[in-house]
Amino acid sequence: MNSERSKDMNITWHHHGVDISGREELLGHRGATVWLTGLSGSGKSTIADILSEILHGRGVLTAILDGDNIRHGLNNDLGFSPPDRKENIRRISEVAKLFSSFGVLNILAFISPYREDRNFARSIQGENEFIEVYVEVPLEIAEERDPKGLYKKARSGEIPSFTGISAPYEEPESPELVLKTHESTPEECALQIINVLEAKGIISSES
Amino acid sequence: MNSERSKDMNITWHHHGVDISGREELLGHRGATVWLTGLSGSGKSTIADILSEILHGRGVLTAILDGDNIRHGLNNDLGFSPPDRKENIRRISEVAKLFSSFGVLNILAFISPYREDRNFARSIQGENEFIEVYVEVPLEIAEERDPKGLYKKARSGEIPSFTGISAPYEEPESPELVLKTHESTPEECALQIINVLEAKGIISSES
Repeated sequence: MNSERSKDMNITWHHHGVDISGREELLGHRGATVWLTGLSGSGKSTIADILSEILHGRGVLTAILDGDNIRHGLNNDLGFSPPDRKENIRRISEVAKLFSSFGVLNILAFISPYREDRNFARSIQGENEFIEVYVEVPLEIAEERDPKGLYKKARSGEIPSFTGISAPYEEPESPELVLKTHESTPEECALQIINVLEAKGIISSES
Repeated sequence: MNSERSKDMNITWHHHGVDISGREELLGHRGATVWLTGLSGSGKSTIADILSEILHGRGVLTAILDGDNIRHGLNNDLGFSPPDRKENIRRISEVAKLFSSFGVLNILAFISPYREDRNFARSIQGENEFIEVYVEVPLEIAEERDPKGLYKKARSGEIPSFTGISAPYEEPESPELVLKTHESTPEECALQIINVLEAKGIISSES
């Protein structure tokens, strides 16, 4: 197609485009998606922030995708009905795939309670480039933390359908990693993810 | 919010996150969006490819967004009705903004015939980070090139609503750059965009 057009435009430039390996060479690491899933209050965003900071310090280009930058932008037309939630995760999955196709290391922090939706994200990404991280925490602890006061609203009925209270959370069946934020610090959790990224050859090991 | 959560999780890590300036320092250039608009067959994709290649050679991380990677992924639920076309460009605009918020230099190649839609893209991006490039070519020449055989289908009525034939193209009123692919080679066009990027301080000038 491109060579057709070039010929047609009567030029001699022979371009081969920039592919993923060229971008990965430029960046010094591979594109990938770290998908943090877990209850509200499990610690996903805290881990995402710390992980991003550590990786950045090692020269890795990260992109954090979370409710803040997705729900207020790309997905600001979506609500919280089941089909909208599904579409929310579908678009996020596609954006993560796009980002990683350009060499970026994405860190996603979404409750993403449904197995089917997370498996879709995995299916469109290369298997080796998708790291599903289950941020596991007992409901009581997440509810006690309640950083956004959402559990309180869920219990009072103000939020009608809330994961863990009035809507299901489907635990990952074979995530790449399980983190327990009630037993480890967020920094320890982030370092466990780093180990997986190194083991998969997505980032190089620190010498 | 994060400090709340951290406190709640009883940790002492003081993270300030990674912001856009940190990422731009890592990459050595600023995030921005080069938005190529023009008729089908005007040469947008060819210019995008060459521009990406030149920039990559200068160490700039680029992402090309075009029909191929958007219509088959993120926007595969959208057709070509007026509201779907609008939603297509809205999502693309949001993705471009996301990419540039992480320091990536986006190159977008979409007909994007409506002023209102392009202006939306500009409005959500920083004014200095949005480079609207009108790839101008007389309709006769674009139709003669017809790289995808779409004009033929449009003339025969097989495609009912086709920009330039049976649907309007609204020319940009004050684009950052106008390129005429019937007068310059795609490489010359790409170099003109490089000049704008340098002048705006998005990439550094070659010494």
